[in-house]
Amino acid sequence: MNASDSILVVKLGGASGNNPATFCADAARLVRAGRRLVIVHGGSDLTNQLSEQLGHPARFITSPSGHTSRRTDLRTIEIMQMACRGLLNQRLVSGLQALGVNAIGLSGVDGRIWEGDRKAAVRAVEEGRTVVIRDDYTGTVSRVNSNLLQTLLDAGYTPVLSPPAVSTSNETINIDADRAAAVTAASLGASDLLLLTNVPGLLRRYPDEGTLITRVPRHELDTATGLAEGRMKKKILGASEALSGGVRRVIIGDGRRDNPITSALAGEGTTIE
Amino acid sequence: MNASDSILVVKLGGASGNNPATFCADAARLVRAGRRLVIVHGGSDLTNQLSEQLGHPARFITSPSGHTSRRTDLRTIEIMQMACRGLLNQRLVSGLQALGVNAIGLSGVDGRIWEGDRKAAVRAVEEGRTVVIRDDYTGTVSRVNSNLLQTLLDAGYTPVLSPPAVSTSNETINIDADRAAAVTAASLGASDLLLLTNVPGLLRRYPDEGTLITRVPRHELDTATGLAEGRMKKKILGASEALSGGVRRVIIGDGRRDNPITSALAGEGTTIE
Repeated sequence: MNASDSILVVKLGGASGNNPATFCADAARLVRAGRRLVIVHGGSDLTNQLSEQLGHPARFITSPSGHTSRRTDLRTIEIMQMACRGLLNQRLVSGLQALGVNAIGLSGVDGRIWEGDRKAAVRAVEEGRTVVIRDDYTGTVSRVNSNLLQTLLDAGYTPVLSPPAVSTSNETINIDADRAAAVTAASLGASDLLLLTNVPGLLRRYPDEGTLITRVPRHELDTATGLAEGRMKKKILGASEALSGGVRRVIIGDGRRDNPITSALAGEGTTIE
Repeated sequence: MNASDSILVVKLGGASGNNPATFCADAARLVRAGRRLVIVHGGSDLTNQLSEQLGHPARFITSPSGHTSRRTDLRTIEIMQMACRGLLNQRLVSGLQALGVNAIGLSGVDGRIWEGDRKAAVRAVEEGRTVVIRDDYTGTVSRVNSNLLQTLLDAGYTPVLSPPAVSTSNETINIDADRAAAVTAASLGASDLLLLTNVPGLLRRYPDEGTLITRVPRHELDTATGLAEGRMKKKILGASEALSGGVRRVIIGDGRRDNPITSALAGEGTTIE
């Protein structure tokens, strides 16, 4: 297997600042050069906007250990499907097609691309008390339908994957797209996983972009986790899971710049290996 | 090729009254029995609702020949993607998966399943005057990526197809789902095309359901067109296009009843052959 045969999994954040046009241009160049890409995206910001527009404002819960996550009731799942799968996914698919790449958009539900367990109960801290929420639809991807992704790649398509996912009991569940990208990369035997975001990489003193950490050896991942703020914690966790799954290299790169994919591959950003 | 090898294309209307739960149950029985199904759906009603909720109410235009169609600006395309591809499509996909069918939802944009020409100009009558609209995103499907559909069917998946489609110039376009189902059936060499709606079939005196026409020979399609009201005209047009494309039989059936697919296949509804 040479470099052009190996699969590259790239996750683009949905946060403002990331630039879908330059992302698509860079992705299209790589695909035309023979690189096999699987693209993953989130969509938190657009889900928040649509939630507000539809009178069902986004809510967030804090776990006893201090993690923040989206309160995901069934209406939130519907809004997420509209925002992520309906709109954001199709923007990327259309953007790629306009550049000659035959992209195919799928949520984790389609063909059971991403299957996982729904959390039966979510613990949250509300006004100082720990409460148990049982109607939350969140989970973690534990199985990737890599056969379907390989079939599509072999036929010349570029898959573009979006939350939500499907639970083993056929519920639709919210999952973290960074960690889903990580398990996808591991499952496909990808050499590299790129996590593109709206900062240059892991920062020693967030948000000071002058404090970029360019390289994290695997045995220092715990230290990296201590430095990570907010969503960056999930990226570091995803990186760790990807490396454990056999991915050679994870790069957290800047999704706002020109050529975000080739720049990250060239070592710009934070390389974890 | 025996009956279980032949492909059946079924289009389910999005109008109220159609019952996705009974539809999925019937579809799942057929798939488990070895029938190869391709499912197509519309989503006009949900698009209208979401348009209203998002402050961009649906508008309709009337052509000089008296046909009514949706005024489709770019925002309407986005709303259609959210309603049809984001929400309605995933409801059917999830409903089928819960019954053991590995469904995979795709819009016409994904993998360029449905490609067609965008109308460069749409003529409409407004206040008695004929005007020309140049920012409308509508068209007709002229090419189906049947290779992709066959690949998915061969791998055991059940495709569920949703508007919109992609133009030859990579614009996203609104298309009529009945006619898209017809060209899909022809392209796949399907034996049968079922168009399920919220009436029992073609009625001699709409809306009197006691006046069902059970059979229309192909040479009487012109007469049938004369009897059709509203959206039924598109179904008759689709039926004609499907038969011209080699489909053996088109059945317009009742999507509101139990076992809507097997009932239509058994001859309930209006059979056109």
